[in-house]
Formats: sequence, structure tokens, C-alpha cells
Amino acid sequence: MKVIIIGGVAGGASCAARLRRLDEAAEIIMVERGPYVSYANCGLPYHVGGVIPEEAQLLVASEAVFREQFAVDARTSCEAIAISPQRKILDLKNLKTGKITTESYDKLVLSPGAPSIRPELPGIDLPGIFHVRTVPDARQIREWLEKGTQFLSGMDRYSGFQTIRPKTRAVVVGGGFIGLEMAENLVHRDFEVTLIERGDQVLNPIDPEMAHIVEGYLERHGVRVELEDEVAEFKQTESGAIDIVTRSGSTYPADIVVLGLGVRPDTALAKMAGLEIGERGGIRVDDRMRTSEPDIFAVGDAVEVKDFVTGQWSLVALAGPANRQGRIAADVIAGRDSRFRGTQGTAIIGLFGGTAAWTGAGEKALARMGDQDFEKIYLYPNSHAGYYPGAKPIAMKVLFRKSDGRLLGAQALGEDGVDKRISALAALIQMGATVYDLEESELCYAPQFGSAKDPVNFAGMVAADVLRGDMPISHWTSMEGGVLLDVREPIELAVEQVPGVLNIPLGQLRARLDELPRDQEIHVICRSGQRAYYATRLLMQAGFKVRNVSGGMLSRTQASFFLQDEIGMERQP
Amino acid sequence: MKVIIIGGVAGGASCAARLRRLDEAAEIIMVERGPYVSYANCGLPYHVGGVIPEEAQLLVASEAVFREQFAVDARTSCEAIAISPQRKILDLKNLKTGKITTESYDKLVLSPGAPSIRPELPGIDLPGIFHVRTVPDARQIREWLEKGTQFLSGMDRYSGFQTIRPKTRAVVVGGGFIGLEMAENLVHRDFEVTLIERGDQVLNPIDPEMAHIVEGYLERHGVRVELEDEVAEFKQTESGAIDIVTRSGSTYPADIVVLGLGVRPDTALAKMAGLEIGERGGIRVDDRMRTSEPDIFAVGDAVEVKDFVTGQWSLVALAGPANRQGRIAADVIAGRDSRFRGTQGTAIIGLFGGTAAWTGAGEKALARMGDQDFEKIYLYPNSHAGYYPGAKPIAMKVLFRKSDGRLLGAQALGEDGVDKRISALAALIQMGATVYDLEESELCYAPQFGSAKDPVNFAGMVAADVLRGDMPISHWTSMEGGVLLDVREPIELAVEQVPGVLNIPLGQLRARLDELPRDQEIHVICRSGQRAYYATRLLMQAGFKVRNVSGGMLSRTQASFFLQDEIGMERQP
Repeated sequence: MKVIIIGGVAGGASCAARLRRLDEAAEIIMVERGPYVSYANCGLPYHVGGVIPEEAQLLVASEAVFREQFAVDARTSCEAIAISPQRKILDLKNLKTGKITTESYDKLVLSPGAPSIRPELPGIDLPGIFHVRTVPDARQIREWLEKGTQFLSGMDRYSGFQTIRPKTRAVVVGGGFIGLEMAENLVHRDFEVTLIERGDQVLNPIDPEMAHIVEGYLERHGVRVELEDEVAEFKQTESGAIDIVTRSGSTYPADIVVLGLGVRPDTALAKMAGLEIGERGGIRVDDRMRTSEPDIFAVGDAVEVKDFVTGQWSLVALAGPANRQGRIAADVIAGRDSRFRGTQGTAIIGLFGGTAAWTGAGEKALARMGDQDFEKIYLYPNSHAGYYPGAKPIAMKVLFRKSDGRLLGAQALGEDGVDKRISALAALIQMGATVYDLEESELCYAPQFGSAKDPVNFAGMVAADVLRGDMPISHWTSMEGGVLLDVREPIELAVEQVPGVLNIPLGQLRARLDELPRDQEIHVICRSGQRAYYATRLLMQAGFKVRNVSGGMLSRTQASFFLQDEIGMERQP
Repeated sequence: MKVIIIGGVAGGASCAARLRRLDEAAEIIMVERGPYVSYANCGLPYHVGGVIPEEAQLLVASEAVFREQFAVDARTSCEAIAISPQRKILDLKNLKTGKITTESYDKLVLSPGAPSIRPELPGIDLPGIFHVRTVPDARQIREWLEKGTQFLSGMDRYSGFQTIRPKTRAVVVGGGFIGLEMAENLVHRDFEVTLIERGDQVLNPIDPEMAHIVEGYLERHGVRVELEDEVAEFKQTESGAIDIVTRSGSTYPADIVVLGLGVRPDTALAKMAGLEIGERGGIRVDDRMRTSEPDIFAVGDAVEVKDFVTGQWSLVALAGPANRQGRIAADVIAGRDSRFRGTQGTAIIGLFGGTAAWTGAGEKALARMGDQDFEKIYLYPNSHAGYYPGAKPIAMKVLFRKSDGRLLGAQALGEDGVDKRISALAALIQMGATVYDLEESELCYAPQFGSAKDPVNFAGMVAADVLRGDMPISHWTSMEGGVLLDVREPIELAVEQVPGVLNIPLGQLRARLDELPRDQEIHVICRSGQRAYYATRLLMQAGFKVRNVSGGMLSRTQASFFLQDEIGMERQP
């Protein structure tokens, strides 16, 4: 059996290694148009930032390793330029020599990836404008930053000489993973960084109110975030810098521009071969990674996958699914019955010591589908027991089915313990858990690691209280009429309060029920929702119409969430 | 309805607060024999060590909070001394005044906890011997350490005066949670600490080969660990210190002794009330936390619970289950159908920056039950992508059912990311996941947080390879006959090798098959098992009888695991 794999990074490399383990006799050719196979593209922004100092650290396995350890004929600088599925042959071009050879195959695996989007804008090709997709991309940026290409900044008014100044200003275009990671890494290199994002939020997969916390955090760490604006053109300035002119009419001068506008599946070869393309523009495959053409498989960033939470087709440019798909294609080629179970959209990004992570469906995605059978809660637990030093607040949004309690998705932000909670919640979503399962989860607890009621348990308890009817909730954004009751202590309201709110501290509530209206809905707030929950229970049993405003004051002023150093006044007995 | 709760810490306090939320009308009395309710006993060792500087930080909710916010009649220094289940009354003794009152109840909840075991040994009551269970215990130790009670250390041979020296020597008896945490905290207070443990390992719930890594780590951080020895007596020395004399005949001088010999369920009241006691010596309850007596519930460290992985009754003295049980008792009292799903034995301990955590069944527990339907694997993945700075190795042992692949248990040790993986694995065990589910888990991946193949995925892949017959394994401890083949590079063997091993580097293996015997089993090793896996696949397909020695050299020399600074030479394409 002769198998050709086109693309030698995550999906292709995984496929090649796995296939050799399953079939010692197969002839395996893996071609990569770039100069490296199996490199760690997730590390590129950190290489630019100097966190990962050596380029060699990014090279996971060389051509030589593939040849020696896996007996794979790995060829870099080699591009597939034509496929004939009927004749089961393809043309490979050696990009160094220009020579074209024709190879036959029994099975073909496409793992061409998804190149960065590079819009057709005036000035897009000016020197100093980069994207970050490959090792050579990162090298070019480092060279640009390091080679001492400094700019003439104009005439010195005393000496009459032109002065030299170092590069100091960066503009990042696009607020996705790469854009944000590059913004951080350029700040680390002492750049003044402006981030321009066309949409009304960064990190499109999460919901806007959560993204706004991230935007505030970026601003706090020195990134100027400009939302709802878009680059119209790039202009070379006299000093050699670039002016970024936006549609709103603003001009941002920059010594370096990094484009992080997302990626687009590379479907050129697939189209040439007549393969079916999906609704999102990726190569359509079944759960065995087979394309519409027998004997041609596709994996990685170029394919569409089913999101098994929403049931929608989606494009996921992440290393984890790419690796798994590569393995599955190899399994199927080797005659095994492996299936890709789809994706659940788990992702994480670290920024300036903070972390944003999410898994499953967000509210935006559910709304887009017209799904109304869900509820959401906000909570702000500590990363570990508040009495042990170093606890940090976590902002969490959790979504679940109203009809059956099934956990649909979670988004979390914070400076400690975010990855742990989203990983546990991802595992629970994978297994079809309900919020009632979350209530009972038995996660690791010692005071430096968590709480006896872990944030995961806490989320389950709050959601289950909502579903069992023990705690009707409302949200700041959708509250209609009624009375707002704040059960915090007066000193807390002195710091921050909603104008016109009624204040009865929780401890006085039982004695002051006659101050509350029985004909209107009462929306109860406190700092994070804990005391408001106690008040809600009390008032419900006293016959009032009452709702807990999910997440309390912290949900109202989320933008300042990370600014809070003080850990919750509320403890859970 | 009148409910009396005996015990006001984790289980009792949770029950009281929950019950009030469910029933505003109930009369709730919560009595606690100690001076505080709802305190954080998990923090006590860290309070002794000064990590948590203020005693007040340990007090989660005061009597006043219970009275004001929950309208619970919370009484400290109040002990239940007699129960009559027939008449539904009990006697409460005010420990300050000595006054005894009789209270009737409709429902009674026992949450008496589990006091520390204090063996009847000569000298056990000497000053300077402590246990660590309550806030006053911790205060006594701090006072002993801080009050400057210094010891006369004998005659100075020049001056003739007796010299004074500070306390410097501590002996901790018992290698469980409290013993180990106290050992760490006493090291932080500059004590020379000796830990004496009767058994052949510390941390009894985990398997010995994993515990030995912990022992090595403790030793490396200045704790002298003496296993398989037991205190015979405590003797006062002339200088005011204590000599600990052991059964082996050794004597350890100490300025302070901390007993961490475990806890024993407090069943005195339960026995007085004629309640059924279980096989492990705890109060027997059903899954609604009901004892054998109608209207009497029991929760927390004093009850036996079902381990839902092993099906065995067990005693679990942990805050998480105690809190959940308290809630469930309250639910049931309030007329709801809540059930305790049992425990899965998840636990974690932090020590000197390292972490040991586990969940589910260990090999010892399975062997004790005579269970043979399981396999184990060892793996040593990095905590996150090796190319991003700060990755640390994790030592993992994972157990799973041979017959159906169900995940049974996991134990992990390391300095980064251990809590995250055990929490995810705990969630997966809760949901009945198989190792095939682990293969497909989609956890958080970015290079500073994990790997495209997370350790959880990696464990699933290795286990699934074993179950699918793709990779027969063997273990150092049970290897019988055959040839040992090391596929590492010669330079690696120069550092450390098994005597008499055959060395063929992986890259040369295909060309040197004729050097291998076809009539014997070949056990393949490398550093951690990765290259040995590739070799195993290659050799299997070439018709050899072959097994991968699980975990490779790292499983053989686990004691030195944490000493390794270098992160794996092996990368996974």
C-alpha cells in the first residue's frame, strides 16, 4: 500500500507516525511545502516575544526523525500541485529545484492547513506587515525587530541631523488568538501596542460580556483596544514607518503591523480534485475523515467538523483535533473502525498572566441557531480556598439545557485555576453530564488547590437551584420592571451601588419583610449572588415574587473584575 | 419541625445552612462541642506553618452569622451527651457552665466528626506532643513554637554554664495527610523533621511505587523519612525535650512531636442511641444519609460511605464529601429525594511545591478485593508543551478494566498540572468513562497549559493500545524471563542502564532485526516508553514476541523522578 500525505505539520505528521505504527509495510510519503515538518505553530507568538528563545525548540520532529524512526519518506519544500482521483496520481513539485514528479497512490491524505487571511488592502505588501503562521513568518518578524532597522524620526531641531529612534509602536489587526497572543508578546518586547478589531468584541467564540473582561484586562496591561473599526489602507511614512488608516478615519502610526485576521481552509487541491466542500468552506469529511472521493482523506484545519454540542458544522483550527483526526485517518487506512466524535470547541488563551478558556456552546452560538432551551448563570468563585494565600477570583459563565439540565458550555476567565475548571467541564460535557452531575463531582480539594465546594460543584449547585425552581434568576441585560433589592451591608454600597436600589442587609431581612412590595417582582443583588441566594430563598418562602440577579454586582461591573484584589466577602458555610 | 444538628463544622454547618434555605419555618439548633463552628480544619497545618498567618482566617462563618443570616440557633462549647431515639430527646451539656438541658427533636443529624487517634503509649501526655484537629490544637502548637520555651541543652564545656538553644528538632508520627503537611510546615519553620511511619510507605491510599516518589521528594526537601518503624514510648529528657523510642530500638530526640496517626469515627453517641455501626467502624447510613434509626441522620467523617468505583464501604475524612452529605441530609429532611452517589476517593496533597493527587481505585485496593480484571500503565508526560518554558514532568499511574476499558483510577505526582489532570480524570470516572473516551477528550490546549495530546489523552491512547492488543506491556516488578532491549541512543545508556541489556537504537532497529531472538519474549525499554512503543509496533509486525516495559527507565528509577531537571528527550509527532 502506498500512502501519500500532503502536509507535514500537526494532522499530517500525526497521521504518518500513526500509520507506520499500524502498518510496517506501507510505503508512506509525506510532503510539506514549507521548510519544516511537525513544528509547533502554537509556539510562534512566544518565539517572536522571546519567551521561547530558540527557533529549534519549535521543531518537534525533523525530516530525519521521520525517515529514521518511522521510515517515512518526508519531503519538505515539496508541493502537491495537481491530483487526479480517477487515475490515483498526483504531481509533486520540488520547490527548490522546480522539478515536477508524478506519484501514484493507493490512499491520499490531505492536511494542507489553513493559511492566514490576507485582505486585498492598499499597502498590504509594505515591508513591516507580517502574519504569523509558519516558522519562516516568525523568523521574519524577529529579524525585523532585531536587525536594528531603526527609523529616521525627523530633523533634530538643535543639531540639524536626522535622529534615529528604535521601533516602538505596533499595530495588531484582529482580536483572535494570534492577534491577542502577538499583542502580549509585543508588549513584552516593549512595544506600544494597538489592537484593531472589526467586531464589537475580541475572542469571537466567547460571549461579548465575557470578552469585555478580556478587553479590560488587555487595556490594563498596556494594549490599546480599538473595537468596531477596520483597516482601510496601509501607508508608508517618510520615516519608513507605516500609517494604518481605518474606515472610521483614524490613523495609527506603527513600526510593525501584525495581521491576525484568522485563517481560511486551504481547499485549492481539494477543489481541483473535485472533492465536496462544506457549507463553512472547509473540505467535507465523514466521521472517518473520508472525503467525497474514495481513497482520499482530509484532516486538520482544512476540514469542516461537526460540533457535537450544537450539531453544527464548524471550522476548528486547533492542534488537538488535528492530531486526533490524523490518527483516525491512519486507523481507517489501516483497516480499523475509528471514528472522529466531533469537536466541542474547547480552547484556551493565556494573556499577561490571566487566562481565558471555554468549552462547548456559547450564548451567541445558541442564539444564532434559534435555540431557546437554555439558561445561563454567572458566578465568581475563588480559585481556591479564600483563607489560603493567593486565591484569585474566576469569572464563569455556564450554559445548560432548561429541559434536561444537560451542560452545554462554559466560559471562564481569571488568573488562577481557569484551565483546570474548563478542562473538568470539558470532560463532563464530553460525557453528556448534567448540572446535577456537576453538583456531585468529586474533584481535587486541598486549600491551596480548590474549595470543598469546587467552582465546578458550585456551578452545578447554582444551575440545579435554578432548574429545580429553588432560585429563579434574572440578568442585568434582560431585567424587566420590578424592584431591585441589595442585601449587602451599607458599607459595601458606599463603595458601589446601583442608583435607587433598596438596601436591606441579609441579616435584617427577616425583620423587615414589610418594607418589600408583594405585587412586584423583586430582583435581589449582592456582591456575587451568594447572599442574594439566601435572600431569595427566604423571600420565596415568605410568598414574595423574587429573582436572584445572576452574579450580582460583579456581573454588572465585569469590566473591573480583574481589578479587584480583594477576595470575596462571602464564604459558603 | 425542630431539627438538631450535632457538630458544627463541615457536614453539620452545610446541613444547617442548606436546611434553612429549604425551610424558613424549621427550628434549627446546631451544637458544637468546640469553641468554633464552620472552621477550615484543612488549613490548620498551614496556620501552624505560618502560611495562613491569622487564626481568624480559618473561621468560615461564626455563630453570629449562623444566627443572623440563617436564623440557626448555633451553640458552641455545647456537647450532646445522651440520646433517646425512642422519646426523640437528647441531653445537651453546656461545657462552660456544666449545665445540662434536654431538648426534643423531630429530626436529628449527627456530624460528630472523627477525632485524631491517640495511642496509649508511655509518655503520650508529655508536654510538647500534639495532634492537629481543631483550632485550639493549632493554637497550642503555635504557642509552643512561639512562646520561646527554649531548652537547656547541657553544660557548656568552657563556661560551665548551661546553654540555651532554640527548638530545632521535630518528630512527626504518621505519614498521612496531616503528618506530611505538618512535616512540610515544620520544615518551613526551620525544624529538622523526622517522619516515622509504621507502614512501608507514606500516603496509604496510593500505591507503594508512587508513594516512594513522594518519600524521595520529602527527603530531598529535608524530611528524614523512617518507614516500618513505630513509636514504643516517649521519654522526657533532662533538657526538657522528648526522646521518641521506637520498636526498632532507635531513639529520636525532639523538641516537638506531632501525631498524625489518622482519625477514628466518633461513634460514641451513635452507639448510645443504638444506631447500626458499619464494618469499617463508622456510622452506617443509606444513600439519603439516614441511619438505622428513623429520624436520625448522620454525615461527615463519622459515617461509612460506599466507594462507587470499588463498591466497598470506606471511611473518607474529607471536606468535600462531608459538605455534600450535609446538603443531602438537609434535602431529605425537607422532603426531597436527594441521594449521595458515594465517594470515589479523590484527594490531593501539596508538599514543597510538588503535588500528589489521586482518584478512584488504586492497585492495592483492587488487589485487596481479589480483583484481577484490571491493567495499569505508567507514563511521564510533561505538564505542558516541552518547548514552552517551565514544563515539568508528571508521573502518572492509570488503572483500567481489562474487560471493558472502564477507567478505574489514577495517581499522579509532579510540580505542575497534577491537580488539573486528576480533576479531569475524576470527572471522567464519575461519568463512567472508558480509556477510549480519554483518547478523545478535548481539554484546554495552548503551549503554556498543555499539549495537543494532553496527558489525559496520552493515558487514554496508551491504555487503548494495550487493550486493543497493539502494545502488549510488561512491568519491572513482574517481568519473567525474556530479553531486555533498550532502544535509546548509546549516550543515554552511558548515563544509566540496566546491566546486560541489549542496545539497538530505534533508528537502527529495522536494519538489525536479525540480532533479536525469535524464541523469547523481548521486553523493550526506552526513557519513558514512547520509543519503546514504536519499537514494539515494529517488532510485533515483524513477528517477534514483544512487550513494552510500561514507563521505561523512569518506572525503574522512580525514586529519582523529581530530581530530573531535563524534560523528556522524546517528543510525539
